[in-house]
Amino acid sequence: MKKNMLPAALSNRHIHLTEEDIEILFGRDYDLVKLRDLSQPGQYACEEKIDLVGPKGTIKGVRVLGPARTKTQVEISLADGFTLGIVPPVKDSGDVTGSPGIKIVGPKGELEIQEGLIAAARHIHINPDDAEAFGVVDGQRVKVRTFGFRALIFENVLIRLGDTSVLEMHVDIEEGNAAGLKNGDLVELIVD
Amino acid sequence: MKKNMLPAALSNRHIHLTEEDIEILFGRDYDLVKLRDLSQPGQYACEEKIDLVGPKGTIKGVRVLGPARTKTQVEISLADGFTLGIVPPVKDSGDVTGSPGIKIVGPKGELEIQEGLIAAARHIHINPDDAEAFGVVDGQRVKVRTFGFRALIFENVLIRLGDTSVLEMHVDIEEGNAAGLKNGDLVELIVD
Repeated sequence: MKKNMLPAALSNRHIHLTEEDIEILFGRDYDLVKLRDLSQPGQYACEEKIDLVGPKGTIKGVRVLGPARTKTQVEISLADGFTLGIVPPVKDSGDVTGSPGIKIVGPKGELEIQEGLIAAARHIHINPDDAEAFGVVDGQRVKVRTFGFRALIFENVLIRLGDTSVLEMHVDIEEGNAAGLKNGDLVELIVD
Repeated sequence: MKKNMLPAALSNRHIHLTEEDIEILFGRDYDLVKLRDLSQPGQYACEEKIDLVGPKGTIKGVRVLGPARTKTQVEISLADGFTLGIVPPVKDSGDVTGSPGIKIVGPKGELEIQEGLIAAARHIHINPDDAEAFGVVDGQRVKVRTFGFRALIFENVLIRLGDTSVLEMHVDIEEGNAAGLKNGDLVELIVD
């Protein structure tokens, strides 16, 4: 593999829920059912889905990701925001301060979060060994080049260092399609 | 304005129809009704809409653009292709050779084109004066830089020269959203 190459993955809309919100949406003492593991260790897609209800429209069947988190966060695309009638700010995952809320409907209940609706900023998961090899540090913003007829260079790609992270760039569906990327396609990290 | 800056425009899904296909979909001797002019001289959005029917799903209310053309062409996003169940090749507008067909349903009739479904490649409309000032020629592929948190550099942006063209970069909704672009936002043409 060429130096500084890494695989890309396209994230579809999804939701992370707190234990409390899982109980509201799916019932008392409910446990999420794992559908399949995701590439990052400990993260998984669940059987469960919820609906997002905005002032202009509803998006049904949004996948729940596990495990539960300390704050409920909804990640959608800008196009999804148009469907809902709410503009999601592009923010780093985990940083939902000042983001809009949204109504969430599950099979056993519904709730309205006051903040937590974002379009997740593109980022690279990386472990310390790969980070050293690539010459990047946690929190850095780098450029990433893609290939093919829709080739482009993404700027401001956040480096997210994690001890057990698996090397991968995450973009949303619109970013992936804009670059003609498919899951697993190799892209090139560019450090200025 | 800084040198080599130009406005961007986001193209939503739409269809160009032949006179013959207009009659099949909307009735004998039907004339398209202009809704509003587009930025390029002579081009306009019409009141009329059609439905696209693919093997996996239907997209309703796809805008017809006028005037009639010599070949029917449907321009959708890759996400639209996923909805329909047909992968549109990314091709320059007008070059539909080998592209897939699609079923088109209008208020008075329906038809199935054998080819013509594409995701239009990003391009810049430019007139001879601007082309000379920017140092580009018809058919050239250039890079275009966008700005802001989702800044990126599009490669392979086609230069489309036209005597009366209005300077503008056209991308589809996914490309525009990937770059955080809104209609009219300025981008920078980069000639290597």
